[in-house]
Amino acid sequence: MKTSALSALGRRTALPPISWLMQTALTRPKLISLAAGFTDNATLPVEISRKLLNDILRSPKIGRPALQYGITAGETNLRKLTARHLQKLDGADDRAHSPERVMITGGSQQLLYMTLEAICDEGDIILVEDPTYFVFLSILQSQGIRARGVRLERDGINLVHLEKVLQRLKKTGELRRVKALYLVTYFQNPTGVTTSFAKKAGALKLLKKFERAAGHPIYLIEDAAYRELRFDPPLTIPSPSPRPGGARAGVRGFDFETKGLLTPTLSSVGGGEGEVKSALAVRGFTERVIYTGTYSKPYAPGARVGFGILPEPLFTAVQRIKGNHDFGTANLLQQLLARALETGLYDMHVARVRKNYARKARVMKQALAEHFPANVEIWESGGGLYFWARLPKGISAGMKSKVFQTALNTDVLYVPGELCYADDPSRAKPENEMRISFGSASEGNIRKGIARLGGVLKRFIP
Amino acid sequence: MKTSALSALGRRTALPPISWLMQTALTRPKLISLAAGFTDNATLPVEISRKLLNDILRSPKIGRPALQYGITAGETNLRKLTARHLQKLDGADDRAHSPERVMITGGSQQLLYMTLEAICDEGDIILVEDPTYFVFLSILQSQGIRARGVRLERDGINLVHLEKVLQRLKKTGELRRVKALYLVTYFQNPTGVTTSFAKKAGALKLLKKFERAAGHPIYLIEDAAYRELRFDPPLTIPSPSPRPGGARAGVRGFDFETKGLLTPTLSSVGGGEGEVKSALAVRGFTERVIYTGTYSKPYAPGARVGFGILPEPLFTAVQRIKGNHDFGTANLLQQLLARALETGLYDMHVARVRKNYARKARVMKQALAEHFPANVEIWESGGGLYFWARLPKGISAGMKSKVFQTALNTDVLYVPGELCYADDPSRAKPENEMRISFGSASEGNIRKGIARLGGVLKRFIP
Repeated sequence: MKTSALSALGRRTALPPISWLMQTALTRPKLISLAAGFTDNATLPVEISRKLLNDILRSPKIGRPALQYGITAGETNLRKLTARHLQKLDGADDRAHSPERVMITGGSQQLLYMTLEAICDEGDIILVEDPTYFVFLSILQSQGIRARGVRLERDGINLVHLEKVLQRLKKTGELRRVKALYLVTYFQNPTGVTTSFAKKAGALKLLKKFERAAGHPIYLIEDAAYRELRFDPPLTIPSPSPRPGGARAGVRGFDFETKGLLTPTLSSVGGGEGEVKSALAVRGFTERVIYTGTYSKPYAPGARVGFGILPEPLFTAVQRIKGNHDFGTANLLQQLLARALETGLYDMHVARVRKNYARKARVMKQALAEHFPANVEIWESGGGLYFWARLPKGISAGMKSKVFQTALNTDVLYVPGELCYADDPSRAKPENEMRISFGSASEGNIRKGIARLGGVLKRFIP
Repeated sequence: MKTSALSALGRRTALPPISWLMQTALTRPKLISLAAGFTDNATLPVEISRKLLNDILRSPKIGRPALQYGITAGETNLRKLTARHLQKLDGADDRAHSPERVMITGGSQQLLYMTLEAICDEGDIILVEDPTYFVFLSILQSQGIRARGVRLERDGINLVHLEKVLQRLKKTGELRRVKALYLVTYFQNPTGVTTSFAKKAGALKLLKKFERAAGHPIYLIEDAAYRELRFDPPLTIPSPSPRPGGARAGVRGFDFETKGLLTPTLSSVGGGEGEVKSALAVRGFTERVIYTGTYSKPYAPGARVGFGILPEPLFTAVQRIKGNHDFGTANLLQQLLARALETGLYDMHVARVRKNYARKARVMKQALAEHFPANVEIWESGGGLYFWARLPKGISAGMKSKVFQTALNTDVLYVPGELCYADDPSRAKPENEMRISFGSASEGNIRKGIARLGGVLKRFIP
């Protein structure tokens, strides 16, 4: 047998470039990884989950349904709670936010995968941010979908460039292949950028304008995976009063599971100051927005539950596809999240997670100011897990660059920015950028890692 | 916008025929459903799961990794335990059963989906049993894969017919489109048939014979989802001694969670008498067998964890595809299953489940003997959740038949056998069969349901 038994998809699906990075991180114990997008181990809700699972499994009456099959689109109660959660975040309670549109999935990744299956044929085009979430690029690559990049600015994509890209595709007759624009709208992976509400509305209007020439709807896929990880307090406004324990408590790790855990309080999650509304809140575009979110990042990746809002006919199509994938996400995890939301423990947990990441981000910000050359441009974020650094033009930070190799030899790892750019023949991939994460590293390692990385940069940046 | 935004796959993916049945069952509370393939609520391991999750989440040291991201192919420990589990079942410890080949998935359904993605292009052909598992047919339909049916006998497919089908495909030049033969080998859904080891070996040899003409490997996909649900004691041999509690305990439901729960004992699971070895144990065909199994059916569908054994290059391809689907099954559920296996509680639970289904099957068998017309052929099984009934030729039990409609009006539901047949232009679908499940109905409802169904049949069968 010389010929492969694999399908075109099977042959096409490449090893994700990030795999090598993850493998490297695992095999070198001394390495400080600022590459992983993992959430902070110290913030994982171990005690909360134990309590909630105990409650669920205390009686057969509640426990048995949690261990049984459920409904493909998700548990009715969790769908309602998720709709309410989004209503609160958006300060809106309309058709776009109704439980009937909510689908529960095994993480938002699964929803992205199935949505692309539902709308894209091989050779179709998805517009993405330059740069964007690299696992999304892996899905496109695997499914044979082409990508076109749209320039990203500090408040979201450049709308003039979006129009230019659409015009160009119209001219080449490829507009009919364009199915959606994919935006990671909150504290974007990898840049930390949050898309302004005005730009979401602007993008939707532009897409609409080109629909007639496309011959079909062009969707906006809003990936809001990091939405709830908004820093509290914000990075740019210093904390008004010192917290008990001070900096040292931070260095020792955040052990917020010791006190007052099981007394839910009203939290500041959602709808608060600084919250940018989602594209679901743009009037008149309810049937064009696909919204994906997740409980993994704010709660626990190991209890993987994501969700999405889908307009028809997509909801029906994706529901059927999910029926073939797994006929519904594990009920036990759905019940766990439903109970966390119901009891207020979810909100309480998220409030704490936001404080924790705010502190770790401050540590990294300080270290960057101290150790990085002044001509490295740092994009700081309002939340999420990442800083984005742009080296002076001409200095490469790519996988094969001296900077990356020297960093690796110095036992510090980052994600080369080039991995986050789609294969788009119409432009070259910038090589002078890096994604630096404070998600999983301890505060001590953040300081050490940035010091090492700064040392490396100083050797190569004049 | 008149044109659909959906992809070919999105447009093609049909509403599974079974959806309507499930919807009907949910909306009519008086209906006795002998249709659902759900596991028995009373056997779900509520107390065991509570204990195990408590153990996992008792300390941050074990609890945190369980709530964090894991590895795409699955937790190393669970992969090892799964390999050992299969080694025990097959009484073999060779390359075919090594942990490196084990992939952990969100139920075996996900593995089937991804395997088909990895090996099939649109228009390719999968050979299936006539009849077969209908959700598998839905996947084929959605992915644009054609199916060809092979006649099923009481001990597995008819090998002469398999060869005939392959010959015919060779003649029409379609052999190069044939990628695999899919068999549900233990207590098959829907017929309850178990494929003999000799037939597995025979099928593998036949497939091999046609590989040269096909130009690529032709795999055997062995779906062993029901493997561990072997009746204890077997249906056909009466129990040698009465069990304490006797028949009444059975009628009241099986409350085995009250006593001696947390004292694992050596159980009779696996490798025991009557256990048919899997295709993995056929010598010389290690690189051609894809084995899929699940912990859902024997343990808990709500804690959905499945697994598979994949030879290269399929393992690598499916691992990458899974990276795009969800980069790994929820860790918390994997740890739960690992701990259940390690402590012996899994084996203990399965031993009890097998006794429970054996009792329910006996109840149904007795009711069938009492209420069904004598000229209805009953296929009884050695395990699983189903009986298969064949009405005299010419009497339809299909969705639109008088039998089905009258049964529905009498508040009893079964799965029409026709739904389990692939669309294969080379033969008509038999309409005179029904799948009758004792999985989720109580023993009282099994008796009532079969009495009602028998009454309906007597009206239409001369």
